[in-house]
Amino acid sequence: MTQPVVTVVMGSASDWPIMQSAAEMLDRFQVPYEVTISSAHRAPQRTGALARDAAGRGIKVIIAGAGGAAHLAGVVAAETTLPVIGVPIDSSSLQGLDALLATVQMPRGVPVATVAIGKAGAANAGVLAAQIVALTTTDVSERLRHYKAELASGVEKAAETLQAQLAETGS
Amino acid sequence: MTQPVVTVVMGSASDWPIMQSAAEMLDRFQVPYEVTISSAHRAPQRTGALARDAAGRGIKVIIAGAGGAAHLAGVVAAETTLPVIGVPIDSSSLQGLDALLATVQMPRGVPVATVAIGKAGAANAGVLAAQIVALTTTDVSERLRHYKAELASGVEKAAETLQAQLAETGS
Amino acid sequence: MTQPVVTVVMGSASDWPIMQSAAEMLDRFQVPYEVTISSAHRAPQRTGALARDAAGRGIKVIIAGAGGAAHLAGVVAAETTLPVIGVPIDSSSLQGLDALLATVQMPRGVPVATVAIGKAGAANAGVLAAQIVALTTTDVSERLRHYKAELASGVEKAAETLQAQLAETGS
Amino acid sequence: MTQPVVTVVMGSASDWPIMQSAAEMLDRFQVPYEVTISSAHRAPQRTGALARDAAGRGIKVIIAGAGGAAHLAGVVAAETTLPVIGVPIDSSSLQGLDALLATVQMPRGVPVATVAIGKAGAANAGVLAAQIVALTTTDVSERLRHYKAELASGVEKAAETLQAQLAETGS
Amino acid sequence: MTQPVVTVVMGSASDWPIMQSAAEMLDRFQVPYEVTISSAHRAPQRTGALARDAAGRGIKVIIAGAGGAAHLAGVVAAETTLPVIGVPIDSSSLQGLDALLATVQMPRGVPVATVAIGKAGAANAGVLAAQIVALTTTDVSERLRHYKAELASGVEKAAETLQAQLAETGS
Amino acid sequence: MTQPVVTVVMGSASDWPIMQSAAEMLDRFQVPYEVTISSAHRAPQRTGALARDAAGRGIKVIIAGAGGAAHLAGVVAAETTLPVIGVPIDSSSLQGLDALLATVQMPRGVPVATVAIGKAGAANAGVLAAQIVALTTTDVSERLRHYKAELASGVEKAAETLQAQLAETGS
Amino acid sequence: MTQPVVTVVMGSASDWPIMQSAAEMLDRFQVPYEVTISSAHRAPQRTGALARDAAGRGIKVIIAGAGGAAHLAGVVAAETTLPVIGVPIDSSSLQGLDALLATVQMPRGVPVATVAIGKAGAANAGVLAAQIVALTTTDVSERLRHYKAELASGVEKAAETLQAQLAETGS
Amino acid sequence: MTQPVVTVVMGSASDWPIMQSAAEMLDRFQVPYEVTISSAHRAPQRTGALARDAAGRGIKVIIAGAGGAAHLAGVVAAETTLPVIGVPIDSSSLQGLDALLATVQMPRGVPVATVAIGKAGAANAGVLAAQIVALTTTDVSERLRHYKAELASGVEKAAETLQAQLAETGS
Repeated sequence: MTQPVVTVVMGSASDWPIMQSAAEMLDRFQVPYEVTISSAHRAPQRTGALARDAAGRGIKVIIAGAGGAAHLAGVVAAETTLPVIGVPIDSSSLQGLDALLATVQMPRGVPVATVAIGKAGAANAGVLAAQIVALTTTDVSERLRHYKAELASGVEKAAETLQAQLAETGS
Repeated sequence: MTQPVVTVVMGSASDWPIMQSAAEMLDRFQVPYEVTISSAHRAPQRTGALARDAAGRGIKVIIAGAGGAAHLAGVVAAETTLPVIGVPIDSSSLQGLDALLATVQMPRGVPVATVAIGKAGAANAGVLAAQIVALTTTDVSERLRHYKAELASGVEKAAETLQAQLAETGS
Repeated sequence: MTQPVVTVVMGSASDWPIMQSAAEMLDRFQVPYEVTISSAHRAPQRTGALARDAAGRGIKVIIAGAGGAAHLAGVVAAETTLPVIGVPIDSSSLQGLDALLATVQMPRGVPVATVAIGKAGAANAGVLAAQIVALTTTDVSERLRHYKAELASGVEKAAETLQAQLAETGS
Repeated sequence: MTQPVVTVVMGSASDWPIMQSAAEMLDRFQVPYEVTISSAHRAPQRTGALARDAAGRGIKVIIAGAGGAAHLAGVVAAETTLPVIGVPIDSSSLQGLDALLATVQMPRGVPVATVAIGKAGAANAGVLAAQIVALTTTDVSERLRHYKAELASGVEKAAETLQAQLAETGS
Repeated sequence: MTQPVVTVVMGSASDWPIMQSAAEMLDRFQVPYEVTISSAHRAPQRTGALARDAAGRGIKVIIAGAGGAAHLAGVVAAETTLPVIGVPIDSSSLQGLDALLATVQMPRGVPVATVAIGKAGAANAGVLAAQIVALTTTDVSERLRHYKAELASGVEKAAETLQAQLAETGS
Repeated sequence: MTQPVVTVVMGSASDWPIMQSAAEMLDRFQVPYEVTISSAHRAPQRTGALARDAAGRGIKVIIAGAGGAAHLAGVVAAETTLPVIGVPIDSSSLQGLDALLATVQMPRGVPVATVAIGKAGAANAGVLAAQIVALTTTDVSERLRHYKAELASGVEKAAETLQAQLAETGS
Repeated sequence: MTQPVVTVVMGSASDWPIMQSAAEMLDRFQVPYEVTISSAHRAPQRTGALARDAAGRGIKVIIAGAGGAAHLAGVVAAETTLPVIGVPIDSSSLQGLDALLATVQMPRGVPVATVAIGKAGAANAGVLAAQIVALTTTDVSERLRHYKAELASGVEKAAETLQAQLAETGS
Repeated sequence: MTQPVVTVVMGSASDWPIMQSAAEMLDRFQVPYEVTISSAHRAPQRTGALARDAAGRGIKVIIAGAGGAAHLAGVVAAETTLPVIGVPIDSSSLQGLDALLATVQMPRGVPVATVAIGKAGAANAGVLAAQIVALTTTDVSERLRHYKAELASGVEKAAETLQAQLAETGS
């Protein structure tokens, strides 16, 4: 079995439907990863150990997703010098604004690479992790270039499809 | 020297001009306290130890002040069953809204007793800590009742002063 | 029947589905409590009396939940020196931001210990009240330590369950 | 001395530089008024008495200004059936948004007539009180019509002045 | 038929389910009123005429409800010296925050008495209009006092009901 | 004297330091314009007349700047079928967020072309007006293309200057 | 087939249910238009080309709709001197506030004519484009005047319908 | 001269006082970098070329800082598969909230690694870039570990200094 180079960690099992998008992107770019749950507040020892041990286990990037007063990514970043990507999750009544601010507004010295709120952000956490891994893995780099070309051609196809529909209905 | 029962901790020395208001209130109610600096992000081990050891050292309440992605109070609360009071500090461009949300929106199971942003909040953290200590300390309880009476009579005096000024200027 | 030490008060019967989470936590920690309804705006006399009489009746902590221009916790805090915990309830179109600001931004001298918006906050109000009561009640203190251990082991179990699921589906 | 028909109350002497604008407008429309200080949180008894006694003393409108978790107008409205005008004051780091929401988002049954944040709002509280008083006082009604005409002619004069300046500088 | 003393105007027929709450309150206090639709943007002439003619037709208070860039209340207030009550309606994706700010932040000289966003605000617009009318109508004043007593006894009954339910279920 | 094709209107003379940026841009593109003051709230008749007469006087675009509950652009747009550009001005404690929402959130049928808050927005209102005028004025179109090239070369020069500075200081 | 004078572009096919409102308005005013999809982020070359070629193909106005970090309108405006209308689309958890700010807050020199969030904004983008086209197309100008009259008479009819309903039900 | 591996780009020379903090961190970790200015809106061709050419020139990470409708980082990310770090700059009246949302809320497929608003964020962009570079550069990795230790010991020293000051003043 391949040694994982990315850890995907989330605060609660209920975050998995969001964070799964990160895993799917890592699958797409064939970046080996592990998935786990930890909580800055309910399991601080576990979270600290996970962060401190990551580099030694060959991990290169940690993706952390959490909602509300989302401290998970920041707490992980406090205990490692690996790049940490934070995914704010919209799980309170404030639509993820709390999670966004609690993830991104880190003090000088301890960055969290924050992506968009929710599923789009989780998917992009996977892409960003792949972009970092690609700096040392030619295959992943090649797959990213291919993906970028697909994004562009997908837009062209969507335009053609819409125009064809409109032409049919005469509008 | 009296054994402290409240710990006042802040993320940075630059928070002291705000957090001093908490200390002044504790002085007023003669609640013994200690002051220190720790950071959830720059000094996670120190922060964890401070939280875990507090109860054993006779501390009854922890007051934690921080700005930005203010994780300090939450990270302390993760490691103790003592009541933790969080003071959001207005030290980023977002006027303390980030610190407020990062302090108050804690997940189920790990509360932070959050007070107002800035100096008023810091002062109230001192009052709230005194209110908790007062449950077992008759003297502090008496001082709180006296303080409440002073607040009310202060309002009356302010009204009289303003009315006298307006009468003088004939407005 | 045991003398209650916590009062749970809410602005309206429609707040009960939220505030019930506070009661459940108090049940869990075996902290005796009473539940009532009062309104800062519709029943100010009742609210004032409830706050003024609480200490005399042996109450140690008051939990107050309200939505919109949530004045209940502040108005209760104005009339007692007991610690008052405020639960902002998301019952207007503004998602609880109004209730949060109206509860937490108290002026110097009259604190409200504010917790998160909604059910998580109500549950945490119960935990926080138990943490305060635990300062003088060894049994409650022991139950809180046990609860904290359960939170941590719950995270571990959730991680194992998720990893088992992912292993099964091969993802 | 004329019997006042409007009470202007504010939470603190520090609010007077803002609330003075309300008094100046009442002066302009020759609506007799009284000025006082009371606090929903620091002087709840005084505030309740002020609100309950107002109608009996011939008061027709109460103007209440406060900042932060601005409960003053709402607490006054709870204890009277007179119209209560609330002026949110920008005295916290949140620029008056907290005071606005805490003043305006009143529950069904207990309205507060909320005006703009700060000095413009305080002036408009004076105008609004005069508009209400004018319903039974022909003189005030006449002065309001005159004021409205002055507002319109003031705009015309401002336009002429600006155009003259621009013509001079040739821009 | 009784001469109306309150005009209830809204920007669109789709606002009626909200604004109906104002009408119901006016019915309750037996304050005669008229209901109409006008739009500051789609029917500016009609809106101006409605505002200018109101005082002459015996109207004492105008209630105006609108959503989005809610200009209706302000535009009406520009053309009358009667008190104008603004009801912000939550009809855009921004949950009524846009309507609230566009209604309440009026410039010096032209107040709008703003109430809460949505149905609670519409009901309170009715109460506030009744409070103003009550200054010259003893019957309405009496009904308001009765209503206030009902609000308080309603809270007591709600408390009793909840406590009975909890006693039954043993919780 | 050239017939103006753009009207620049603002709610108050105090808005001129902001709105001057619009005039300067129109000067740059040699688009003839007029400047005036009118207020949706203080001078509604004047505002309505200004809007209704504009097309007849040869005006092609109206630029309207206002702060707070910024109704000016919307009220102008209600009375003309000319394109109306709205400039939100930061003149309240809410930093222009109120003016932005009150300007942009117009209902279906009556658009306001909203630009950025403050001076940058005022300048861009001038550019946008020139872009519209350019559709029928070749000279203005040519000047816009030239301006766009200047913007790009200005960026290049700024980069060179910064790099030269850094090279000198060796950083 | 008529040469289109307006381009309607959106970031994704999923934006069409919103942007269709722009097309419907252009149909109503008989302004010929084309519809396409492009993305500032997924198809930057296509977007640049579309913007640079538009004027040469006879396009007079470009309408661009996007959600989230809505860069599409700004990126199009960077590459053309034609007027660009931006429609912020509510497609993230932040209700379109992100799209609004990312569309409207353009820097000095490169304006985007921003309209309301969502369907009302998309419809108004169509109206605004027609208003610009109408400056050189008498027929469109005539249709806009007719539309404005219809808006006003629609309000009158809505008022009559509502009043008839209320008269029937006796409320 | 060492080949740069990081590009620091900003929208305007006025952003340098903020972005300088990124450069200083890169200096500290001895990560070779280049500094330039480009604008998504004023110099789109230059920005596109800069992004497309970066990987070929040996660049591994791009740091992009911009304010307002901050499109720079997103537009760069659209044209490269390198990791792009976005620094939101507080240069409008909205305190950087606009820049934050315009930078972070990127659509699925094109991530921007967003850091905090302003100087702390710029410094952290430098740290994050170093963390990425460190994955392939042992020296940088070692310096990061050293820096982390310094952060922790700096907190301890700050605590000692504050406690010494308090001991002196006897407070």
